[in-house]
Amino acid sequence: MSCDDNQAQAAVAVIGLGQMGTRLAQAFLAGGYSTTVWNRSPAKAEALAAQGATRAATVNEAVATSALIVVSLPDYATVRTVLGPAAGQLRGRTLVNLSSGTPQDAAEAAEWAAGHGAAYLDGAAMSGTRLVGRPEALFVLSGSRSAFDRHEAVLRSLGNSVHLGGDPALAPVYDTALFGLAWGALAGFYHSLALVRSAGVDPAEFGAVATAHMPFVTSLMADHARQADKGVFPDDDGTVEVHRAAIEHLADTSETQGIGTQVPALFRSLLQQAADDGHGASGIASVIEAIAKGRRHA
Amino acid sequence: MSCDDNQAQAAVAVIGLGQMGTRLAQAFLAGGYSTTVWNRSPAKAEALAAQGATRAATVNEAVATSALIVVSLPDYATVRTVLGPAAGQLRGRTLVNLSSGTPQDAAEAAEWAAGHGAAYLDGAAMSGTRLVGRPEALFVLSGSRSAFDRHEAVLRSLGNSVHLGGDPALAPVYDTALFGLAWGALAGFYHSLALVRSAGVDPAEFGAVATAHMPFVTSLMADHARQADKGVFPDDDGTVEVHRAAIEHLADTSETQGIGTQVPALFRSLLQQAADDGHGASGIASVIEAIAKGRRHA
Repeated sequence: MSCDDNQAQAAVAVIGLGQMGTRLAQAFLAGGYSTTVWNRSPAKAEALAAQGATRAATVNEAVATSALIVVSLPDYATVRTVLGPAAGQLRGRTLVNLSSGTPQDAAEAAEWAAGHGAAYLDGAAMSGTRLVGRPEALFVLSGSRSAFDRHEAVLRSLGNSVHLGGDPALAPVYDTALFGLAWGALAGFYHSLALVRSAGVDPAEFGAVATAHMPFVTSLMADHARQADKGVFPDDDGTVEVHRAAIEHLADTSETQGIGTQVPALFRSLLQQAADDGHGASGIASVIEAIAKGRRHA
Repeated sequence: MSCDDNQAQAAVAVIGLGQMGTRLAQAFLAGGYSTTVWNRSPAKAEALAAQGATRAATVNEAVATSALIVVSLPDYATVRTVLGPAAGQLRGRTLVNLSSGTPQDAAEAAEWAAGHGAAYLDGAAMSGTRLVGRPEALFVLSGSRSAFDRHEAVLRSLGNSVHLGGDPALAPVYDTALFGLAWGALAGFYHSLALVRSAGVDPAEFGAVATAHMPFVTSLMADHARQADKGVFPDDDGTVEVHRAAIEHLADTSETQGIGTQVPALFRSLLQQAADDGHGASGIASVIEAIAKGRRHA
């Protein structure tokens, strides 16, 4: 732990002990950090006290004894309500807000924190509660870089804590985008599972093979992001026209098997748009430009 | 190599030396297996001969000298045309067909091979050509289990070669389903990338964070497959209603940023169907049942 003032301070306070807040406090404790906890209803704080946390009687006390304050509450309005009475104690400390909200919420919260002399990091837990404390649990954070650097070791006890940049609005933007990414993969998976199940395949067996296939699919993403950055779409992973033909096969097979065709219909529509834009012979990442254009086919 | 007849035989023959066939032959050579190659136009076979392969003058010769014959041709009609003249040589050998086709194609090819006394495995290369020979390159194979077992070591020099079951039609079913899975992840990724780029985020930076997020998303799949198998959908990863609310936020943000909303519109529709089916308070994997029902919302 590194402190930037002279007071003896607990390493970290966790405000809000729902399912996520509880897991955060446990991960800090497991990382060996002195952890103060507060929750509106005291039972959850007591359970954590039994695991080694210090239970604060008030938010004011939790804030006053910690260099780093991590907030996990349902929304930003609740954050304001809960932290308001302790605002006078925030000066010189770092506030990490993992509550869910919009980029605008994050910008306003950063301004409020700055007005009280606190460094601010907005953040989002991307991997649910189950993985918290493991290296693969992704936490995205944005805002004060120096505050992130100062508390990086503590924050890394939560998992893979990544600083996205100085703009506090970046964390909610990533939060929303990564949620969409997850849903794409899940929608594809659910459709595929419905398809193989209709052909008599055991779901668990398909789940294992699908899991083994995902590292390859994931490996395309960094490459396709670079293509989007340059606006050049080589066909190493197949052209739009080649994939269109294969999507027709997926749609036909789905229809033959009597399952829904909403998912292949989306893929077909995205590839159709890319082809309409003159990208038939381009690589499939040119679909990004079709989506970015928006509205036309809405 | 293990042979089930007394003749001295080359370990493996590769018929068809397109981009994939060439990579297959190189992986067999790298694995230390004696490899015979044949291609309609001889230049590609000559290039491989320079890398240590034995060039067969005819398909007949390639088949006659190999216990394992791996075919990589554009389609099943071409497979029949190319292998036809060598059919009399197939007895006692194993034919692995990695050409693209339907479950029906696979069933017919297996019958044809059986008619000539050959063991048959239908297969598909799921990871493009770039990874061939690396452990993460997924090859799905189905058909004769004993032939797979006999040649497993040779086939594993291609990558993660998985036997799916005795029905040769399984490989094309998985091929189609895994293609849909990949497209789901890519559609989600392309939408997310368009979204963050519209907010000024560097695509390459987002690509790195998205890549770090995918192992978590992937980790849900085996679990959700087991849920589908049991028809019980616990809410550990969030309920349908909670995800619907978050999808509305994704859709709103996408619209505000002026990008296309096709992708979140699909997610919304899938979750709506699950909710209509009474799964609002169920876990999100209940979407599988909404897709499996089909047609209703087509």
